[in-house]
Amino acid sequence: MQYQTIRGFRASFLDAIADPFYVPEADCMRYLNDGLLVVEDGKVKDFGDYNELKNRYTDISITHYPDRLIVSGFIDTHIHFPQTEMIASYGEQLLEWLSTYTFPTERKFADRNYAQEIAAIFLDELLRNGTTTALVFTSVFPQSTDAFFEEAQRRNLRMIAGKVMMDRNAPEFLQDTAESSYLETKQLIEKWHKRDRLLYAVTPRFAITSTSEQLSNAGKLLAEFPDVYLHTHLSENVKEVESVAELFPESEGYLDVYDRAGLVGERSIFAHGVQLTDREFARLSEAKSAIAFCPTSNLFLGSGLFKLEKAKSSETPVKVGLGTDVGAGTSFSILRTASAAYQVAQLRSQKLSAFQALFLATLGGARALCLGDKLGNFEIGKEADFVVLDLRSTPIMALRNKPFDQTIPHTLADISDQLFATMIMGDDRAISATYIMGELAHKA
Amino acid sequence: MQYQTIRGFRASFLDAIADPFYVPEADCMRYLNDGLLVVEDGKVKDFGDYNELKNRYTDISITHYPDRLIVSGFIDTHIHFPQTEMIASYGEQLLEWLSTYTFPTERKFADRNYAQEIAAIFLDELLRNGTTTALVFTSVFPQSTDAFFEEAQRRNLRMIAGKVMMDRNAPEFLQDTAESSYLETKQLIEKWHKRDRLLYAVTPRFAITSTSEQLSNAGKLLAEFPDVYLHTHLSENVKEVESVAELFPESEGYLDVYDRAGLVGERSIFAHGVQLTDREFARLSEAKSAIAFCPTSNLFLGSGLFKLEKAKSSETPVKVGLGTDVGAGTSFSILRTASAAYQVAQLRSQKLSAFQALFLATLGGARALCLGDKLGNFEIGKEADFVVLDLRSTPIMALRNKPFDQTIPHTLADISDQLFATMIMGDDRAISATYIMGELAHKA
Repeated sequence: MQYQTIRGFRASFLDAIADPFYVPEADCMRYLNDGLLVVEDGKVKDFGDYNELKNRYTDISITHYPDRLIVSGFIDTHIHFPQTEMIASYGEQLLEWLSTYTFPTERKFADRNYAQEIAAIFLDELLRNGTTTALVFTSVFPQSTDAFFEEAQRRNLRMIAGKVMMDRNAPEFLQDTAESSYLETKQLIEKWHKRDRLLYAVTPRFAITSTSEQLSNAGKLLAEFPDVYLHTHLSENVKEVESVAELFPESEGYLDVYDRAGLVGERSIFAHGVQLTDREFARLSEAKSAIAFCPTSNLFLGSGLFKLEKAKSSETPVKVGLGTDVGAGTSFSILRTASAAYQVAQLRSQKLSAFQALFLATLGGARALCLGDKLGNFEIGKEADFVVLDLRSTPIMALRNKPFDQTIPHTLADISDQLFATMIMGDDRAISATYIMGELAHKA
Repeated sequence: MQYQTIRGFRASFLDAIADPFYVPEADCMRYLNDGLLVVEDGKVKDFGDYNELKNRYTDISITHYPDRLIVSGFIDTHIHFPQTEMIASYGEQLLEWLSTYTFPTERKFADRNYAQEIAAIFLDELLRNGTTTALVFTSVFPQSTDAFFEEAQRRNLRMIAGKVMMDRNAPEFLQDTAESSYLETKQLIEKWHKRDRLLYAVTPRFAITSTSEQLSNAGKLLAEFPDVYLHTHLSENVKEVESVAELFPESEGYLDVYDRAGLVGERSIFAHGVQLTDREFARLSEAKSAIAFCPTSNLFLGSGLFKLEKAKSSETPVKVGLGTDVGAGTSFSILRTASAAYQVAQLRSQKLSAFQALFLATLGGARALCLGDKLGNFEIGKEADFVVLDLRSTPIMALRNKPFDQTIPHTLADISDQLFATMIMGDDRAISATYIMGELAHKA
């Protein structure tokens, strides 16, 4: 695409420039009460205090959002587009939930037109919720992956996705083979990886539904295409972990199954990790892999409580992003996801601050996806995907988050308090607008 | 108030006529695809299939809600009106949360005008969320209780409330005395109990903030006014339970503190009960007391997972209603509360069906408040408080809950599925309208 535009956005701004799990919040978070973001050709050209910058940009068009907070676009590090319509399916934990609801639904995605229709709804719903980048499971059918990438390309989105690989322990109508999954994935990588803003992830569903041969082929693809991603599930549910141990008796734990196939590296993102052992956290840390923490899903399926403080330890730090995991997750909203993450922390007698949650949703997610140089905050040169937040989008939020008295300097603590309430109570209504590469992509 | 009206409502209807925790759902739930509810003088005069009833009511005005599901008004069995503005306060578990956020906020309710202003916002927010009856903590200041009842009376609501009694372990500005709390409560009972639809609950905050003398005075009030309620907190948090054990060394557990003061009876409602022992469940069952299950609060404060299956056992059944527990609860919505209740069940490897949740929110809540003869379903003679639900109130809910094909008979399982999705994903937007005694009280 061609950009030859320069324009400005004036509002309050908040972004993270370092990780508040390790660095004091005052040193991580940039808050501009009255800021100016200048976007040229889709990227951040300048960013700072409005009064300091305005004289340099007297001749550009400036969109002003008074009483709004602009943050970097949300990043969803784990979601399934074919499960959009089966969100909130009743009464099962992981393995039964897959066989009862998921597999029959995913079958429909053999139909290219149907896949395209749902992909469009899915992407629009992400934008409605302020999510600008996601790491996405498609289905086993390569035509569904094509459909997804086409719709993402049409919207100029930075999206990472891949065809699901699964060659056992699933209905026959959903199975590929070790060989066909290798060939189809290879074709899709060649077709879509790095096309516009799109990136490819080699996507075996999880150890239970892949033979060792298929996992090895996934590893072979990663070796052949060293800058594609690996995206799969890991240690979500107790029964799942037991089943993996039975299927791979030679492996030393669940992560080791992937490790033996060459799937554990810097560009590998593992969804869930609820049941991980300390040794597995250490291995993920060593390999610089990432975990997608999916709290609404973990609560909805009763999978358990992710040990975020283990991933965010000083000893074995592991990159973490937030994932909605729709359709086991119950909302497309990263705000709702952050609220569930807070509940998980509280149930473990841990704390999760608003700034820590915002970090996970933006720069932390970007780093988990090895996109920290392109996304996650308003550093000059980054891609200008951002969200205009309304902290007062319902009557009760308006009561709770009173407008700041502009005559009194307000602090990072003030904005932390209001952002926290917005995470706990907010939803799609809190997203006034979503911008992609500086262009309006959704307006409430 | 005077009613001399008769009018009808046509829509789909769903109500519970028995308890689906004990009786097969097909025998509990009444679903009318095309039903007619006839209301006269605020009460249900007739209810049944539209085609069967319509010829009897040819001359009345009928409001038709096509593609809407009407259910009985939601009942919130535990909520604090003075905490409306401090919802979503960050980072503490129960005892620190009280001292850091709650007590300073409740201090403002010494101001009668302020109390009235917040009471109005609070009640409108309940109606916006489809809640038509609630059991409500006011503050220690009797003028805040007056303010609350006045606003509830103005809206013709069936509300139960009481002045908080607390004479120790709280800031001095929030303390009454054993004697003053007795006298003030007595005056309030005489003024408000059974006035229009209002009812009074004797309301010691919890064992930690009341002396034995104050609890005894609460018991004395219950003896003097046998049809008022008792409303307090019980066994929410581990540290709270430990603290109660230290403060009342002579008691055999937390519930026993209340029992010794004569506070454990059929009209007693205890909020939380997360940490209850089996013996305490048995005692509550024997006494016919009720528990308000407040899952969004229990998750937000990290209090723990309520053992609903213990309360709903055959051996020691205990009445249970849902409570939002705003401001520790994070939403006024009973739908959101039901969603959290489902998560709690899943984390305990239990199930909670949509119909069970609807029962807790309607007839179960009514029975917990000893109002099963007046509220909770569409039985003839009951008060006509009801909610018009939109099962397709967001784009993703519209995708998930497709309109039924009217050419194919749809089943209780179909409506269960859509109601479940509405509970998991729905919020105030799912409430198209709320009616009080057959009169429109809120319209989306």
